[in-house]
Amino acid sequence: MRLFKTVLEMSAFSKKARLNGKSIGLVPTMGYLHEGHLSLVKASIDSSDLTVVSIFVNPVQFGKNEDLAKYPRNMKRDLALLKKAGVDVVFAPEVSEMYPNGYITYVSPQGGLEGLLEGEIRPGHFRGVMTVVAKLLNITEPDKAFFGQKDAQQCLIIKKLVRDLNFKAEILILPTVREADGLAKSSRNSYLDAKERVTAPAIYKALQIAQQMINLGERNPAVVIAGMRRLIGCEKNIKIEYAVITDPETLQPVSSIDGRVLALVAARVGKTRLIDNILIDRKVGSHHRRKNAKTHV
Amino acid sequence: MRLFKTVLEMSAFSKKARLNGKSIGLVPTMGYLHEGHLSLVKASIDSSDLTVVSIFVNPVQFGKNEDLAKYPRNMKRDLALLKKAGVDVVFAPEVSEMYPNGYITYVSPQGGLEGLLEGEIRPGHFRGVMTVVAKLLNITEPDKAFFGQKDAQQCLIIKKLVRDLNFKAEILILPTVREADGLAKSSRNSYLDAKERVTAPAIYKALQIAQQMINLGERNPAVVIAGMRRLIGCEKNIKIEYAVITDPETLQPVSSIDGRVLALVAARVGKTRLIDNILIDRKVGSHHRRKNAKTHV
Repeated sequence: MRLFKTVLEMSAFSKKARLNGKSIGLVPTMGYLHEGHLSLVKASIDSSDLTVVSIFVNPVQFGKNEDLAKYPRNMKRDLALLKKAGVDVVFAPEVSEMYPNGYITYVSPQGGLEGLLEGEIRPGHFRGVMTVVAKLLNITEPDKAFFGQKDAQQCLIIKKLVRDLNFKAEILILPTVREADGLAKSSRNSYLDAKERVTAPAIYKALQIAQQMINLGERNPAVVIAGMRRLIGCEKNIKIEYAVITDPETLQPVSSIDGRVLALVAARVGKTRLIDNILIDRKVGSHHRRKNAKTHV
Repeated sequence: MRLFKTVLEMSAFSKKARLNGKSIGLVPTMGYLHEGHLSLVKASIDSSDLTVVSIFVNPVQFGKNEDLAKYPRNMKRDLALLKKAGVDVVFAPEVSEMYPNGYITYVSPQGGLEGLLEGEIRPGHFRGVMTVVAKLLNITEPDKAFFGQKDAQQCLIIKKLVRDLNFKAEILILPTVREADGLAKSSRNSYLDAKERVTAPAIYKALQIAQQMINLGERNPAVVIAGMRRLIGCEKNIKIEYAVITDPETLQPVSSIDGRVLALVAARVGKTRLIDNILIDRKVGSHHRRKNAKTHV
């Protein structure tokens, strides 16, 4: 496994690999790797000649009062995990390498998606995400780039980035990997103390409640959201930032649950901000019930 | 010569060319071609295996009250000129091909350059330029892309774009091509009526006066600017928007003319907005004079 710290080395590697007809898979990360990241790495290795993992805590996607300074880092452990996984290249640049003096160019979403949910709570976050992903795509020239569904809004925005700016890479979204009790894997889980760790799975339980209610035939999102809020409300150290039922593409709230919807929750467990989501598809049983209940286009 | 109207065709051509080891030169234009464009085309043909010329009047770089609707177009003439010049591919997409429904991604400069001169007078202009150039670079995958010095600020911003977002293309800036009387070639010259056409060269004459004053030893930019303004002021149908002496990289006004400076003018000739600039380097004679006048670091 090779470790590159400069854009020049990384670019040269990718250029040569492409000239040799090798396909490249990219897994962009902020490090402090967990099984979610490693599932992306495995998918890349399974489908690409060469797998590049970037480790870069991107300051541009953090707000002023966010956790940039304390974001967990453990490069030694990350490198060991990636070597064991069979990764070909780790690209781990310093901030000054990615944003040198005189840096002025930012990519941002301007059309709705960026003002909702994470974008509303974290102004400028997706500008940071789009900018760093655009850079990583140009530096590593991947055929495929892999992202996790946990960051649902990020996934949608990166798909827009690639489509809108005509990048060549294919974006692949892999399922959220969870702890045994359902808590979505996240580097930020390391912030949780023992008590918080016990209550944090309420976020996923709320999403599961939403799924069950919808499968049972509930079509009113307000009722489903109330159910989600009630479940999380039982836990004293969790504060909901949002709990919504949305269109899976636009992330706009739906007025009636008629097809596939995305349920999303963001909450603070103690001081730790966690997000999670699930895609909910009405099951055959509920389709049948719906058909009997009401004609629908 | 091939003409592509879709991103898919253009991308496929470039991908194949690159796989075959061919180098690609890109000349981005808004059409209505003049000798300035053709000098870029020639430079590309001379240095690249394949030359792609894009013709696209990019709506995103026009302000609401600007000349998007009346911007001159003559595709038939442009294609004939490019075929004669030996161009391999013309990429001429429709607006809906470049900015399809649901388009949300914009690249913008945020750090000084965009708020000056053209950026101050044309808010959002460079966001449009950066966005379309980022797209064209991804679609056509050039080794080199060619731009004209007439749009000096655009050239600086495109160099930033390429450096900051780690595009692979090399940006080449070619000298402004002029009419016999010094007027910089521009598609917008076609807006000028006969009287305006006679007075428009005053813009270049003002730049020449600046050069002469500096060569004679003038180090005070205010004096040089006054000279430029005086010359253009003689013409009744020209209104200066700006006339400045700046650092060639930052475009910030210089307080003293000590090395290379860029003189820039924007003016309205009748209703037509024209820009021009020249890079001024103190000559040996003036260096000598300066040395005797004052010690300088």
